[in-house]
Amino acid sequence: METETIAAISTPVGEGAISIVRLSGEQAIPVTAELFQGKNLLEVETHTIHYGKIVDPAVGHVVEEVMVTVMRAPKTFTREDVVEINCHGGMVAVNRVLEITLDKGIRIAEPGEFTKRAFLHGRIDLSQAEAVMDIIRSKTDKAMSVAFKQMDGRLSQLIGRLRQELLETVAHVEVNIDYPEYDDVEQMSKTMMQDKTKDVHQELDHLLQVAKQGKILREGLATAIIGRPNVGKSSLMNTLVHENKAIVTEVPGTTRDTIEEYVNVRGVPLRLVDTAGIRETEDIVEKMGVDRSREALQEADLVLLVLNYNEPLTEEDEKLFEAVQGLDYIVMINKTDLDQKLDINDVNERASGKPVITASLIQEEGIDQLESAIARTFFAGDIDTGDMTYVTNVRHIQLLKQAKQALEDAMGSLEMDMPLDIVQIDVTRTWEFLGEIVGDTASESLIDQLFSQFCLGK
Amino acid sequence: METETIAAISTPVGEGAISIVRLSGEQAIPVTAELFQGKNLLEVETHTIHYGKIVDPAVGHVVEEVMVTVMRAPKTFTREDVVEINCHGGMVAVNRVLEITLDKGIRIAEPGEFTKRAFLHGRIDLSQAEAVMDIIRSKTDKAMSVAFKQMDGRLSQLIGRLRQELLETVAHVEVNIDYPEYDDVEQMSKTMMQDKTKDVHQELDHLLQVAKQGKILREGLATAIIGRPNVGKSSLMNTLVHENKAIVTEVPGTTRDTIEEYVNVRGVPLRLVDTAGIRETEDIVEKMGVDRSREALQEADLVLLVLNYNEPLTEEDEKLFEAVQGLDYIVMINKTDLDQKLDINDVNERASGKPVITASLIQEEGIDQLESAIARTFFAGDIDTGDMTYVTNVRHIQLLKQAKQALEDAMGSLEMDMPLDIVQIDVTRTWEFLGEIVGDTASESLIDQLFSQFCLGK
Repeated sequence: METETIAAISTPVGEGAISIVRLSGEQAIPVTAELFQGKNLLEVETHTIHYGKIVDPAVGHVVEEVMVTVMRAPKTFTREDVVEINCHGGMVAVNRVLEITLDKGIRIAEPGEFTKRAFLHGRIDLSQAEAVMDIIRSKTDKAMSVAFKQMDGRLSQLIGRLRQELLETVAHVEVNIDYPEYDDVEQMSKTMMQDKTKDVHQELDHLLQVAKQGKILREGLATAIIGRPNVGKSSLMNTLVHENKAIVTEVPGTTRDTIEEYVNVRGVPLRLVDTAGIRETEDIVEKMGVDRSREALQEADLVLLVLNYNEPLTEEDEKLFEAVQGLDYIVMINKTDLDQKLDINDVNERASGKPVITASLIQEEGIDQLESAIARTFFAGDIDTGDMTYVTNVRHIQLLKQAKQALEDAMGSLEMDMPLDIVQIDVTRTWEFLGEIVGDTASESLIDQLFSQFCLGK
Repeated sequence: METETIAAISTPVGEGAISIVRLSGEQAIPVTAELFQGKNLLEVETHTIHYGKIVDPAVGHVVEEVMVTVMRAPKTFTREDVVEINCHGGMVAVNRVLEITLDKGIRIAEPGEFTKRAFLHGRIDLSQAEAVMDIIRSKTDKAMSVAFKQMDGRLSQLIGRLRQELLETVAHVEVNIDYPEYDDVEQMSKTMMQDKTKDVHQELDHLLQVAKQGKILREGLATAIIGRPNVGKSSLMNTLVHENKAIVTEVPGTTRDTIEEYVNVRGVPLRLVDTAGIRETEDIVEKMGVDRSREALQEADLVLLVLNYNEPLTEEDEKLFEAVQGLDYIVMINKTDLDQKLDINDVNERASGKPVITASLIQEEGIDQLESAIARTFFAGDIDTGDMTYVTNVRHIQLLKQAKQALEDAMGSLEMDMPLDIVQIDVTRTWEFLGEIVGDTASESLIDQLFSQFCLGK
């Protein structure tokens, strides 16, 4: 079934200078050669591009002027023969060319099918394939950088190393169990297993600790701005939007009306909660009372609590402080251009270690400090996408947690002096959970489901 | 100035599998080679594609996995060195790669600048360049086919031939004026000029006659459905939309909310007038009275006048007949499933030669006949995009009209036995107007203005 040749439009839909029909499979080159007026594509070198025209055999005349790239297996994205037909942009031309290839018995590709073939043919593993889609959907440079490293195989290599260590341990134990000639073998195996599981456990723990950061980079930080009326919430919103590169993305698919707004603050994508509502009437943020603020907190990863420098702390402020307990928040005391009436020591005490920034939005003061505080809250300063391997994918995080749990079961059994062939079962489970991340031990239905979330033509 | 190297994103904006950064100019290959981790692009063969990675020199690490196509002048779209960097889809990755090239001193391309260079370097003429954009914007296969032929040089060749004939005539006359040794030369020249101008005039006339069809294919036929309440206008609208491939296009740019709806009826794109309003409440068409119908007629190229088979002609119907005088219209008598109370002979008489179709929309009868009538009204049957050269562009039509007028001035002067060197001035003007179509005699500001309407990256 996998040898069927597939085709799809691989560029985004819309008016543009170039649109591409991509074909992959045994028939990709012969079918294109048949439709192509120009060089004989059957005879051209691999990885070359050729100017020519596409003729529709049904009507017998030329329908499009194209550049055709011929790439022969195995050095291609799918490891199969790949042809890319670069058409003039616009929907009609590229659809027409696609239809002509389909008339020739080529099947339209399912979403993600090109990448799926790259996975099935062993060019990339599952976590790399997933990273391909993350790159396409990334909203900031940092997010892309994290996804790129994952696609480049950083996570795969780390997971591969951990699995190798677990496997060696299991193998070692099995050998010892089969050859129990020496008395101290049992003890040696146990010590080795304790060391290994401790090492791997530490690495899994670290991966999970930084995973939260990775997830933020990938999905954005749901940010709520709360405070009493007239403390400057909408000014803060506008400042964040205007000072930083706003990234508006339309969510594709059926929910065409959903528009998410991201603000890129030092590489941290803030997803501003409830901006749609805010945009409707400019000062709706100002009108939001305590109740409304509480609602906004429900989905927030980060809360910006705004206070007024020019007024003493009110009961409402105190309630907001209570509401943010247990959340990541930053206090911003606005209006330092006016007289001080707020007891800052009191605020610092209530904030109990959370950052407290003083600012005058009207005089454009304090924004830098706020942005630093945001970056520091989640990344302890600079965001390090250089060496860090971030796990960003919810599926991966889930599997890492399961792997860690299985490993802790093994470690518990070791503590209780259980026989090693019992302990080994949990170590093997750990190895399997990690294997699912890279796709080694993933089920076919999982694989199908993952690739179906891809965009067409990828 | 034209030797500056330019770069732009050449694929539509959005999420897709592949996005392309295109570069053109002397620095295209060296700059890409500098950023590229993989083969040395300075040494690769022309028209080859290479896998590798793009490194951001500012941060020193890899930012994207790419396929780079290297095409050396002169066999390229712009006739300059061209590099296409195929990135993973998505906005961030491709923007990042573009930015890195811009950091290296490459200038961002203006809209249409790649095509403009192709024109300035003589690879295509102005009418061909304009056709490139028509292909991108075309809404039906027929429209694309017409644009494609124009890009392929059909119109250019025809214009070229006509200009050549005019030029030869002028040259011949000039030679005869310079060497008036023989008595009958004057008469010979006059006869020849009469023959030639008559030939060219005939061809210009034909081009203008079919230009209306070309314009319809390109821009769609603004179609108004009018009639009294409850004759079946919204049923007709729905039938046309559902029976045919509806083409909804979002008009790009600032007017993001404008959505035009096209229905492809046998290759004729009908642009349904006022569909936005109709969509809002399903039966607003039904509520449209005579006044509203009159408004809809203002911008209509085609009117579909719906009558009720089951009712005698009313005063309102008669007013509608008056309103469509002088327009292209088709009468559709709906509800033949009910008893006949309408005098069809009377209707035929009032329609005075325009098509009259009987139909029962509820029984799905008469649609075929209506669609044939629409195609016949504008194309006398089948639409012939095979051999016909259609002029679709308003600018071209305007110039053809001016050329025809200048030629008629020349023919008038010949009739009045004016001296040939006077006649020749108008013939030369004809030659110049035609030259503006292909860009031979077009001003720089016209050229700038034309290309500025292109999309980015083309």
